Order: sequence, then C-alpha cells, then structure tokens
Amino acid sequence: MGTPLRSVAERDDELEGGVELLCVGTELLLGNILNGNARWLGEQLAALGLPHYRQSVLGDNRSRLIRFAQEAAERSRVLITTGGLGPTPDDLTTEALATAFETPLEERPEVWADIAAKCRSRGREPGPSLRRQAQLPRGAQVLPNATGTAPGMIWSPQEGFTILTFPGVPSEMRAMWSATAAPWLRDSDLAQGVIASRQLHFWGIGESSLAEQIEDLLAGRNPTVAPYAGGGEVMLRLTARAQTEDEAFRLLDPVEQELCRRTGRLCFGADDDTLASVVIASLRERGQTLAVAESCTGGGLGASLTSVPGASEVLLGGVIAYANPVKRDLLSVPQELLDRHGAVSDPVAIAMAEGVRRCTGADWGVAITGIAGPGGGSETKPVGLVHLAVVGPDGAESSGERFGSSQGRDWIRRLSVGEALNRLRLRLLESAAVADA
Amino acid sequence: MGTPLRSVAERDDELEGGVELLCVGTELLLGNILNGNARWLGEQLAALGLPHYRQSVLGDNRSRLIRFAQEAAERSRVLITTGGLGPTPDDLTTEALATAFETPLEERPEVWADIAAKCRSRGREPGPSLRRQAQLPRGAQVLPNATGTAPGMIWSPQEGFTILTFPGVPSEMRAMWSATAAPWLRDSDLAQGVIASRQLHFWGIGESSLAEQIEDLLAGRNPTVAPYAGGGEVMLRLTARAQTEDEAFRLLDPVEQELCRRTGRLCFGADDDTLASVVIASLRERGQTLAVAESCTGGGLGASLTSVPGASEVLLGGVIAYANPVKRDLLSVPQELLDRHGAVSDPVAIAMAEGVRRCTGADWGVAITGIAGPGGGSETKPVGLVHLAVVGPDGAESSGERFGSSQGRDWIRRLSVGEALNRLRLRLLESAAVADA
Repeated sequence: MGTPLRSVAERDDELEGGVELLCVGTELLLGNILNGNARWLGEQLAALGLPHYRQSVLGDNRSRLIRFAQEAAERSRVLITTGGLGPTPDDLTTEALATAFETPLEERPEVWADIAAKCRSRGREPGPSLRRQAQLPRGAQVLPNATGTAPGMIWSPQEGFTILTFPGVPSEMRAMWSATAAPWLRDSDLAQGVIASRQLHFWGIGESSLAEQIEDLLAGRNPTVAPYAGGGEVMLRLTARAQTEDEAFRLLDPVEQELCRRTGRLCFGADDDTLASVVIASLRERGQTLAVAESCTGGGLGASLTSVPGASEVLLGGVIAYANPVKRDLLSVPQELLDRHGAVSDPVAIAMAEGVRRCTGADWGVAITGIAGPGGGSETKPVGLVHLAVVGPDGAESSGERFGSSQGRDWIRRLSVGEALNRLRLRLLESAAVADA
Repeated sequence: MGTPLRSVAERDDELEGGVELLCVGTELLLGNILNGNARWLGEQLAALGLPHYRQSVLGDNRSRLIRFAQEAAERSRVLITTGGLGPTPDDLTTEALATAFETPLEERPEVWADIAAKCRSRGREPGPSLRRQAQLPRGAQVLPNATGTAPGMIWSPQEGFTILTFPGVPSEMRAMWSATAAPWLRDSDLAQGVIASRQLHFWGIGESSLAEQIEDLLAGRNPTVAPYAGGGEVMLRLTARAQTEDEAFRLLDPVEQELCRRTGRLCFGADDDTLASVVIASLRERGQTLAVAESCTGGGLGASLTSVPGASEVLLGGVIAYANPVKRDLLSVPQELLDRHGAVSDPVAIAMAEGVRRCTGADWGVAITGIAGPGGGSETKPVGLVHLAVVGPDGAESSGERFGSSQGRDWIRRLSVGEALNRLRLRLLESAAVADA
C-alpha cells in the first residue's frame, strides 16, 4: 500500500500527543456512507504538518462518546470531531463532551440569534429543537458555521487539550475548517514544518511495473514517493516536509524531474490534470477541434471531455452510434464493412472516426467500438475487446485492446475512454514533435 | 444524518463487548485513500447482526499498534484488522499483535509452501522478504488468502477475545471474508439475529421535505427508516432485525408499502435500481426504442443509459450536439430557432429531441441543452439553467430547470441527466396509465 510517510505520521517514538480525529455517526458504523470527512481532514492535517496518529468512528451513543473523549484527553493534544451537532435527539456530541469534562452547557444568545435569522431567511420560524444547537459548554469559543445552522466550538476543557467540533455535512465542515480551524491550528505550536505534495499521473503502465522502475526513489524518506492505482491509471504521490513551503517544493522538484525522465510519455500530468484536461489543453493550444464516435462507451468519452470547463472551444460534438444502423446512417460507415469485419474491428473504428470528423468538420475524430459485456462476446471477439481509432490531419490509426471480462462492464468502458484519450494525447505529442523537427 | 439504528449498533447500555475494526495504514491517516474497507466491513457486520461500536485507523507504527491491541482486548470480543500484512518492513500488524500478547511468531511450512507456489506460478522465485508472511503467532489459525500471498489469521490470544486479520487489498480482504471469516462469525455466539435491509430511491423531492412527510415512520425502531441524499436523489434505507431473514423481510414489507403509498411516483425504484435501469426496463417491456441528443451533458445521458447491461435492446444511439453547427447539421435544428430563442430554450430542446428521434428512427427522443458553467451564463440565462425535452409517440414536451450555479459544473450535469431520465420515466408511466384506461 505504498511507502508510509514516517517522516510525518510516524515521526518518532512518542506514542501520541498529536491531533486525533473522531467521526460520530451510526451510519458510518453501519457502512451506509463512506467516511469522506476523515480522508479530507487527514489531507488537511498533513498539509499543515500536524502530527496525526489516530482516527476513530463511534455511533450516536452518549456513554461511549463520553468515555472516548476522556481517553483522547489522556493521549492527544487536539481532538477534532465531526457529526452529532444537529437538532435531533440523536445529535449528542456537544452534550457528551460537556459531560465528559463536567462542564455545564449554556445557551449563547448570539448563536441563537444567528440560527433564528438563518431560519427566517429561508421563510421558516425556528423550532424549539434548533435551540439545542445554541448550547455550548461554558468557556468554549464558537466555531462559526456560515452556511448551516449548527456551529462548532473550539474548547480547551483542560490544560494542553483542545477540542474542535464540526458538523458532519461535508460542505459545512470544510468551509468552517478553512475559515477558522486551519488558521487556528497553523498558529498553534503543534505544527512541525509544512508538507508539500505533488501527484503525477500515468497511463499505460501497471503499478508494479512502475514501482520496479523507480525502486530506489520509493525508498526515499524526504521526499517520499508512494504509488497508487485507480480507474486504469497509476499515480505517484511525492511528499516533502520542510520548514517552509518553498523549501518543501525545492525538495520535490529534483525527484519529480528524475521520475519524469525515467518514465517519459507514460506520465501524462500532475496534480489536478486528467487525460481529458490534458487533451483539451493541447488541442486548444493548437487551435484544433475534436469530435467523437462512440459505441460501447455510449457517451462516456464525450462526457469525460465535456467535464473539463471550456471544452466547448475544442469539442464540437459526437455521435453515440450504439446500434449498427446509426453507425451506417449518421456516420456513413459502409454496410459492407460492418458485414465483412463486424462492428468491433479496425476498419469500422476508422470509418466511425472518419465519419464523425467529416460530419462535424472537426480536425480530429476519435472512435470507440467494443464489447463491454456481459453479453455479446464470442470466441474470436470476447467481452473486453475494444477497437479504438484516431483520425486526424496526419492520417488514420486504429488497433484493438483486450481489457478482459473479469472486472466487468463499467471497468471495460472506463478503460476504453482512458485509452482513447491517451492515444489522442500520444498522437498530438508525436505530431508536435514532427512539427518541431 | 438519518435515524440511527439503535436496535443494532446502539442496542443497550453495554459500553463495548462487540466487534471492533482497526484499519492499519499511514496512507489512510494522510488522506491518500478513502477507507472503503471500513465501510464494506461495517455493512457486512450489520448484515450478520453483529454488535459493532468502534472503528479506528492507525499508521504503520509498532508501538501504537501494540498499545491499541491491548486496549481492544479490554473492551471488545473481536478485533478485525485490515492492512499491514505485506512483505515489506512497513508491514507490522502480525508482529505487533504477537508482541502485544507476548506470543512468539512461528513460520508455518504450509503457508510458506503456498506462497512459494503462487510466486512460481507467476514465473518468479519467492524472495526472502515474502518469508515474513509465513510467520504467525503460536496458536493462531490461518485465515487463507486464495488470491494474494499474505494470509490472515484467526487468533484468540486470551479468553473471550479473538483477532481476525486481513490484508488491505480490498479484493483479497473481501474474498477471505466471504470464504472463511463470515461463516466463522455467523457461528459465533456474538450474532444476535439477522438484519435485512432495503433501499428505496426517490427523485424530485428534497431530503427534508421527504422526511417531513414520513416523520412518524422515521421514529420507528424495528424496522428503522433512515434518509440519505446523494447525486440529486434521496434514498430511504429500511432495516429490520429478526431471528431469521424471512421474518426480517416480513417486518419490512408493510413499512415499504406505506412509504410507497405516501410518496407515489416520487419513488422510482428499490435496491440496485437506478433511473437509467428503470427507464431501460420500462422501454424494453414495451418494445420501444430511445435516442438522445445532448448539449451540456456531452454524452453523460448516453453513458448513464448504456451503463445498464442490455441497454442495446432499447438505446439506438444519440448525438452529442455541443457546438451549434452540430445541432443544425446533425439534428436539423433550424438556424432560425437558434437565432431567435438561443440554444438553451424549449423550442431548441424540442427540435433536438425530434431531430435525434427522426435521424435514428427511435420511438422516443430526449434532449438536454443548458449552461453548465462556469462561463457562458447571462442575466436571463444564468449558469445552471437547463432545458429538457421528451418527444415520443404521444407528443413533445419541454421545460426549463434552474439547478443554480453554486454547486458547480459536475453537479449541474449530473442533475440534468437524472432529471431527463426522470421525465422520461414519468411520461412512460403516464402513457401506460392512458393505455390502461
């Protein structure tokens, strides 16, 4: 599971003493939802350079919450909680924390005024159940919630131990974090330098093959390099720790350059880049346009491209040619090609890409035709076989890929979209290299 | 965050004593990956009717793992761990657990033989680092891993406390769970009946409005009813506990019927149903076909429909008409309509749907045209405005929706796809009702 960042999360032999996280919600224990809050907060704590050793999930249970808070006070300097701040009787976090440290709850008039005003602005009278949300332990500071009704708190119930509470609604929690909690933590004496990280994205190589090529770099301590795989692509996360952000990035740069040197065109981008965004940017730079013709992906390639803001400067449109008559009538794929080679073949893929290029007037045409399954496979053309064509000013190319059937329909469709984008990316790189030569 | 299932996860006043979960991996603390294993195992434990009160995440750190295991032994009957079973020095789970309970590690010849055979079948000689994976604490039973090299274990280091370990790789963990761990837990005396649950899906109503209509049912204890929202739809999860699965489903049925009675056509399906699968099934039943014309969703509607296996019986294809000339040339939308009303308008949406219906020969045509942003909005046509048309044997209808701009481009596109599918669903229901009358 990648090389752990000992330098941060496992820095030394101190057992605890850092920031711990508690997510409250029976729906988490039941597996009804993924704990995205824990992931997001983990990233934020790492970015702030805060030691973070433990995450926990408890249900909406008063006794367990009380006992947990008392345990956390023994081992950690900061406890961050999410969830359990709402107006219903199941929302127990504030009350349990107050009880754990034998502190009375007090209604804060300014909080109640804010809750009431928010309700009225939505045309509702604030009900009595909302009143509970205005109660905080004596001595706690309000952690304001600009968008929702439930505020959090910053509270030090005992020397050297501070609790920060957040609602479970991700958008509210994130806004409160950025506005108030992150600056507070940054100014605390807990932060030990800063973390900078960069992600590199690869297509066309497996995680283990990539790892073998860069074994020496994976062993590094600062920066660390950790591989992850998902959705057909492989990512490397580079993370450095230093006293300043500039210094951390200076540690990252040479490692990133070495990685790019070794992997060449396998690396398609960094950080927020996607295959679609890289292709759109490359075409926009050249002032060229694109159209797509899709069979088994059914619109997924177009949807991927149009997920990029500003795609309309590049993508003219496309044809979802799911049924063969649509391939023939809208894309002018000759019936004879369909009869002779079958719909899943290079000649048909090329004819689809040429057809959509012609009927939209685009510079580039990309086509996908394949068997996503579960039905429709044969011995010579099994489920997972996909032919992909790229047709452009410099000619037409097509070839087949076998994505296999074991990982299912969605997987085959996702890989097909990625592979089509990557082939176009490589063609654009090649034609740029020819133009430069 | 919904009504908690007190009956299961918070059954009574016993503080602990159930099954707890520990996911080991620094990458989890750093937020590099989502903890999908915790969610999946939470669901499995609920389905088995096992009391489950606590989940934790620790990094790859020996001292903290040792201390945690000792704490868990004090409060729980079963500890399930994931991660840290690999061959590298960062994989510490087995060793830390053995140390926590002062038990020596022993190499198991049968495990080593299995690991070596798996390596050789992949054309590799087993290296010395893999040898660590064959070591288990004295007295532990092997929890076999059919696909990967690292086995887990089932081990009771002390009376009344059992540890089950799994690798962090989800596919291996799940296979080992189903093959060995679930049957073991089912036979343990921890299981308290079984849980049955059903999910109902709604489109066209917000979570709070739905909750207000069914307030009395949300207060139920067995079955419980809990609302969740995501991706524009609202879900209700009904969960019942009983001695047998049949009995649990008998508890669910009347509540489900009452929910459906109150909410009428807002409820579009149950369990694995999606708007796309419901629409595909309805059209297949009638022997009718469909084509789509998409502007701002760029293929997302087609991709959603073709995600359903067997969609090819119903969906003929479509046109991604992103640029206006494509709307005109491929869909025969009159230039005059585009000039007079603009591309985002009812007349153009209807012309697009009619155009794609005509050029594919489908029974039904659905069109989406809107402004997904971030650019392209104006005062009269702001970002988030989307017009959706459904054209079929019984006529043409179109109207606009304002999805707002605050939640961004992806959100607007996702809601547009859902809304288009839902409008087609409702039209199909209406025309069926007319046919029946």
